[in-house]
Amino acid sequence: MSLTFQIQKTRGLARRATLTLPHGAVETPVFMPVGTQGTVKAIPQHLLEELDVRILLGNTYHLYLRPGHEEIRRMDGLHRFMSWDRAILTDSGGFQVFSLSELRKVTEDGVAFRSHIDGSSHFFSPEHSMDVQIALGSDIGMAFDECTEYPADHARARVSLNRTLGWARRSRDHFEQRKHDRPWGQRSAFGVQRSENEPDLLADRFEGKTPSLFGIVQGGMFADLRRECTERLVEMDFPGYAIGGLSVGEPRELTREMIATTLPLLPADKPRYVMGVGYPDEIAEYARMGVDMMDCVLPTRAARHGLLFTSEGRLNIRNRQYAEDQGPADPACGCMVCRRYSRAYLRHLMAAQEPLAAVLNTVHNLAFYLETMRKVREEIAAETVSQESRMGDQAVGESMKR
Amino acid sequence: MSLTFQIQKTRGLARRATLTLPHGAVETPVFMPVGTQGTVKAIPQHLLEELDVRILLGNTYHLYLRPGHEEIRRMDGLHRFMSWDRAILTDSGGFQVFSLSELRKVTEDGVAFRSHIDGSSHFFSPEHSMDVQIALGSDIGMAFDECTEYPADHARARVSLNRTLGWARRSRDHFEQRKHDRPWGQRSAFGVQRSENEPDLLADRFEGKTPSLFGIVQGGMFADLRRECTERLVEMDFPGYAIGGLSVGEPRELTREMIATTLPLLPADKPRYVMGVGYPDEIAEYARMGVDMMDCVLPTRAARHGLLFTSEGRLNIRNRQYAEDQGPADPACGCMVCRRYSRAYLRHLMAAQEPLAAVLNTVHNLAFYLETMRKVREEIAAETVSQESRMGDQAVGESMKR
Repeated sequence: MSLTFQIQKTRGLARRATLTLPHGAVETPVFMPVGTQGTVKAIPQHLLEELDVRILLGNTYHLYLRPGHEEIRRMDGLHRFMSWDRAILTDSGGFQVFSLSELRKVTEDGVAFRSHIDGSSHFFSPEHSMDVQIALGSDIGMAFDECTEYPADHARARVSLNRTLGWARRSRDHFEQRKHDRPWGQRSAFGVQRSENEPDLLADRFEGKTPSLFGIVQGGMFADLRRECTERLVEMDFPGYAIGGLSVGEPRELTREMIATTLPLLPADKPRYVMGVGYPDEIAEYARMGVDMMDCVLPTRAARHGLLFTSEGRLNIRNRQYAEDQGPADPACGCMVCRRYSRAYLRHLMAAQEPLAAVLNTVHNLAFYLETMRKVREEIAAETVSQESRMGDQAVGESMKR
Repeated sequence: MSLTFQIQKTRGLARRATLTLPHGAVETPVFMPVGTQGTVKAIPQHLLEELDVRILLGNTYHLYLRPGHEEIRRMDGLHRFMSWDRAILTDSGGFQVFSLSELRKVTEDGVAFRSHIDGSSHFFSPEHSMDVQIALGSDIGMAFDECTEYPADHARARVSLNRTLGWARRSRDHFEQRKHDRPWGQRSAFGVQRSENEPDLLADRFEGKTPSLFGIVQGGMFADLRRECTERLVEMDFPGYAIGGLSVGEPRELTREMIATTLPLLPADKPRYVMGVGYPDEIAEYARMGVDMMDCVLPTRAARHGLLFTSEGRLNIRNRQYAEDQGPADPACGCMVCRRYSRAYLRHLMAAQEPLAAVLNTVHNLAFYLETMRKVREEIAAETVSQESRMGDQAVGESMKR
């Protein structure tokens, strides 16, 4: 099987599961760090492993432009290229085409655009997006969709939805034809120095396995369109589904509403992925609502700006009040940064514009996000629904709100 | 003893020794990475430990300006501030005052200058430099000297030399008076979370120990001035000596000549430190000439520009020829970068301007420099001077030339 999703326990709407992919097992609910250009900014892969990251995101748009999907295919895929032997999910490139590139022209066939790097002309269609993702060799790829802008009225959201559905069908059909052409198993996906005596067993490791394609529910902020899109995608029988087009500027109540509207219509036995969220309290909340997978640049991007997420709330480590604060960023955190470095030092690194600031802040924020999800998984998996657990639920809920 | 220098073996002019400082033992000859602002750029302290760095440099000028020596003193010194429990050497601030600041005015008393950060006015004298270094709490401090510019004629070098000698005497006198006021032992110098049961033994660890001050030989490129300066400094009986004012634009033959002129006049039983050198073949060469300690920004700065030092010579990893090169940066290197990542990936990180480039390139270059010195130490320590050893000497010498 190229993808299995084994639910071990439920608690209310939440599910504790194991998602098994060609490059390993992922415990869900899971938060996926974003490694846009084949790197989670500033963090070496062995530190990601120490944080127990099991799956990360690569961006198809960026990697297509640089270094190129054919180049990466020739080098046996993104896993080997970035020396990451665990799971990778790639987005379709659709979102960045709309948000980053210049001079976009959308037709039924796809999107013509100019690279934000050098202005060169390119064309992304559902078929081409599938080819790029298969060449990269991610474990999970995403259908090429149109991320409806916000705000959009019902008529506009309807047109966008129709396009997304047509592109979803084309994505699926093309992906099914080509998915066996993934660049796995030719050589070790980990490290560049192999013992000469090492047998070439890796071909067996991926034998018969292919990447999997998820569909993406759009529909703007309209419950009826969301429901319609969901039903049509479910008919196409994807192995997993994402809810896209959220966290695009809408108020949080609307985000929650669209998730709550959509989730019940998605197959319960398949993974459900909300793209592009969120703050620590959000991801915990959505996990409790039944979301299995989430990704967001927030912990990593905020880190580089000195914004740290902690059990005591958010803090801006650049603030002068920390100049002689010798305590850790988060007294309740056991990450390598909080066990070793002081707030005063982290503040100094930001003030001095030192590259180590990005490294340490990012390690902490990722540790905080991953620990947040680990606690939710633990909560779902807990056997007793005792008074303590209920109080724990409430306490976790309260602390997650900050 | 605050500093012991135990020579275990000599080979020709070279010495294999252990320099024991309050914050630990350093095997010499040694290359000291530069941690200008209390951080070796982009490298977390635990990676420095994994590389077996035993001593690093902090820059007095930078730390005085930001975050400030009194602030660092209040936080129990630079070791604790940067969570580095091994040895630290601080320079005097003299070089940066001359090279970085604006509107410098030099008098017999010291140097008035404006900060390069915000233009504020400051004054550095020998006494003030000693106060700052003691407040930082380095294991070794450097006398406040005037780094003679290059080129300088004999008359100019003479005037500069006289100033350096006067300032050396003032540095020594003031340092001797104040060295007991170092901020060690109040609390753990490692990490910010201590067990409540941990006894406060650290006060014993540094009891009776103080920082040590090294003198710096100047004299421009004039053998007679260098000899005179050396003799006068030796009369002042410093625990160690540096040769300064080199690698300031002079041809390498002149660098070597000044080192060769000076070393025989320095006490053989004390450490000899050449400041600001050099390329891998240089540091090996000078170590074989009898130099015990060296520092340079080259491996770390070059790394950030994509210049990697390898057993096959220097390579610019940004070069297009590496775009699909799946081998390691250096096939002969066992560092964490060469064991895991490919040249193609390192090149991509540079092209994509990703912060991970600085991390990985720096780890490799430091590993290469430290391994270079380790091999020289091993060579000096080797028992037999066999035909193989002589051939090894020649091979190492050849490979170091690139």
